[in-house]
Amino acid sequence: MRIILASKSPRRKELLQTLFQEFECIPSEKEEKITKKLGYKKTAMLLSTQKAGDIFSKTSGDRLVIGSDTVVVLNGKIYGKPKDKQGAFNTLKTLSGKTHVVATGICLIKEQSGVVQMESACVVSKVTFNKLTNEEINNYIESGEPMDKAGSYGCQGIGKKFVKKIDGDFFAVMGLPVNKTYELCKQLDVL
Amino acid sequence: MRIILASKSPRRKELLQTLFQEFECIPSEKEEKITKKLGYKKTAMLLSTQKAGDIFSKTSGDRLVIGSDTVVVLNGKIYGKPKDKQGAFNTLKTLSGKTHVVATGICLIKEQSGVVQMESACVVSKVTFNKLTNEEINNYIESGEPMDKAGSYGCQGIGKKFVKKIDGDFFAVMGLPVNKTYELCKQLDVL
Repeated sequence: MRIILASKSPRRKELLQTLFQEFECIPSEKEEKITKKLGYKKTAMLLSTQKAGDIFSKTSGDRLVIGSDTVVVLNGKIYGKPKDKQGAFNTLKTLSGKTHVVATGICLIKEQSGVVQMESACVVSKVTFNKLTNEEINNYIESGEPMDKAGSYGCQGIGKKFVKKIDGDFFAVMGLPVNKTYELCKQLDVL
Repeated sequence: MRIILASKSPRRKELLQTLFQEFECIPSEKEEKITKKLGYKKTAMLLSTQKAGDIFSKTSGDRLVIGSDTVVVLNGKIYGKPKDKQGAFNTLKTLSGKTHVVATGICLIKEQSGVVQMESACVVSKVTFNKLTNEEINNYIESGEPMDKAGSYGCQGIGKKFVKKIDGDFFAVMGLPVNKTYELCKQLDVL
């Protein structure tokens, strides 16, 4: 079975290697649009489904397409990737000393002998941050790590020292819910 | 300040690199003795303190020595590293489908200008496993990953696909509680 990850994220690629030795990465170029009215769980599922669906429609034959997306939520507000350093500072200042939610959508679309199946899910984790000083935030932004990440931080990089605890799936917060993906792959008989 | 990690674990070394650019690794050769009567939190703290203390006593001058150790606990029983494949199988069969506790002890001993300070803590996390088939367990054991790890699994390697969720500090389960270590280093004025 041809396996396609609908992402260019090096973190998602690294994590999917736990499940598959070989796969392709074809990033979706669909713009991520966040609809505020949808709620964060459905937003995450919708974004991952859009990614998987986009690449599924651009490919053919027997294949499994995997899309995943992550949103960071605090007090009902969804935090995406920062626009600039000031945006990253504001987000990190908001997350400082608090517990926020990370919702990770996962969508798998499989075609085999003309039969198409789809499975999707949302994995919710809670992430608690240390109280951060402005100096810690600015040093972190200068490292460049926050700039391409939802919520302006990476739980697996330099950011790990600021994360007091995670209740849920660490790998979902990192970008791909490995365990849920493994389960869904078994349901779809591709593992 | 000379920084010494009292461990040869590549995982602990990797994680400590989040906090320090340069440090030495000097593994303690003290045999790990688990006293059942102590309770798992104090056992983890004691083991980490023994490691740090061993290397502290073998070195001199201004330095910070860091020791860490992890124990896996289910129903009051402590699971260390497996003795052989059968031991790994038995442990993984026991952890299958259940939530167990991982207690990670961390101990820092610092000497500066003749003044010695020590800080230690225990970080407790809960890890929930998928229900594993015998085939999944045997394949995992054949990968070799379980053999040098407390509880016979690694949450960061192939094992990540079996871990449904972790409530607590992922990096503590992996081997070093990065966030707590960061906090204690700030308390000791070494960061």
